[in-house]
Amino acid sequence: MRIDIITVLPELLVSPLGESIVSRAQRQGLVEIAVHNLRDYAEGRRRQVDDYPFGGEAGMVMKPEPIFRCIEHLRSERAYDEVIYTSPDGVRYDQREANRLSTLQNIIILCGHYKGIDHRIREHLITLEISIGDYVLTGGELAAAVIADSVVRIIPGAIGDEASALTDSFQDGLLAPPVYTRPAEFNGWRVPEPLLSGHAARIAQWQEEQSLERTALLRPDLLEKL
Amino acid sequence: MRIDIITVLPELLVSPLGESIVSRAQRQGLVEIAVHNLRDYAEGRRRQVDDYPFGGEAGMVMKPEPIFRCIEHLRSERAYDEVIYTSPDGVRYDQREANRLSTLQNIIILCGHYKGIDHRIREHLITLEISIGDYVLTGGELAAAVIADSVVRIIPGAIGDEASALTDSFQDGLLAPPVYTRPAEFNGWRVPEPLLSGHAARIAQWQEEQSLERTALLRPDLLEKL
Repeated sequence: MRIDIITVLPELLVSPLGESIVSRAQRQGLVEIAVHNLRDYAEGRRRQVDDYPFGGEAGMVMKPEPIFRCIEHLRSERAYDEVIYTSPDGVRYDQREANRLSTLQNIIILCGHYKGIDHRIREHLITLEISIGDYVLTGGELAAAVIADSVVRIIPGAIGDEASALTDSFQDGLLAPPVYTRPAEFNGWRVPEPLLSGHAARIAQWQEEQSLERTALLRPDLLEKL
Repeated sequence: MRIDIITVLPELLVSPLGESIVSRAQRQGLVEIAVHNLRDYAEGRRRQVDDYPFGGEAGMVMKPEPIFRCIEHLRSERAYDEVIYTSPDGVRYDQREANRLSTLQNIIILCGHYKGIDHRIREHLITLEISIGDYVLTGGELAAAVIADSVVRIIPGAIGDEASALTDSFQDGLLAPPVYTRPAEFNGWRVPEPLLSGHAARIAQWQEEQSLERTALLRPDLLEKL
């Protein structure tokens, strides 16, 4: 898989892409991530990537030309399955979408910044608008890092223990059960008895009950989707 | 405001906290962000922070003792308004919660990793569990960065143009209208005529209509909450 990220702040992505699972997956050749500085596609001495909005609103808008040029350049090199724009008014990102993206060959993620990008780019070049949640960030870079992390970690081979990912929250539509480790008693707080029983069926039953209970309590909307 | 972040991967937070608005807000003294390496609170030669889960599930669980020690240490230095744990089964984070957090004095954000933290910590020390979305990440570090970014940018003075934040998506319960900048025609694609009219009332009306239309089309659930 290949992920191309277009940004005006490539520095912000250095440590999210250079550490942990995402870094290891790149070294293992499971994913190639290329970060492109949008300014390299801007013209003029100042390499301007933003301009005032039509209509006189506050804030700056990312100009269409550099984005157009950058995407056209990438598209001349390979075919892309999705050209993604991260924006709070995009489609709500979830684990199902992460699973789907992890099966694609080539994707572009364009990070918005300032007041957003010129809407003509969204209408004509973007194939998928993703929101990682109902909140506003300084820019799309953290959203791109979130998408990259969630996608890369489920590429087979990326995390050491693949069985672990199967019991994550959302993979079966439920929240995960509580987890505990040693010591069995800490500060007067004890691990629930079933987990200490050594009885596999009893443990599995307890975990399933907890998973259902926690989902019903905290996220009843997930149960309706099952 | 002060934000203390507890993590086993402090390196991952270097560029998200060291660039852009978040970095500038720290230099301006608007926010102090301290990152704590959980290993500094672990014991033994290996400074072990994780251990096998009770019940024999796949994956590792973060041990209770180092987290307990770190939080107790921080609490001995100042009072905290919230001790936050980032987890996909937490309360769904949104702009309203970002606004609320931005008014607090001191918060701790504990980043989960591996299969999560020992549940006793969640029951006894955590005051607020936040999920930035319905997807699983390698660790809570990106979630902590998302929270920090969304909170810091709305502290008065953090972004240059405060009027800009007021017209962001969600601040009035609606998605933002489309934005455009020069040129008025690019690649045969024209900016909508009302924005070019120079007529303030007409522009405002068009933006309001677009905002409502886009919300009705893309996020009808937001309209129900108004």
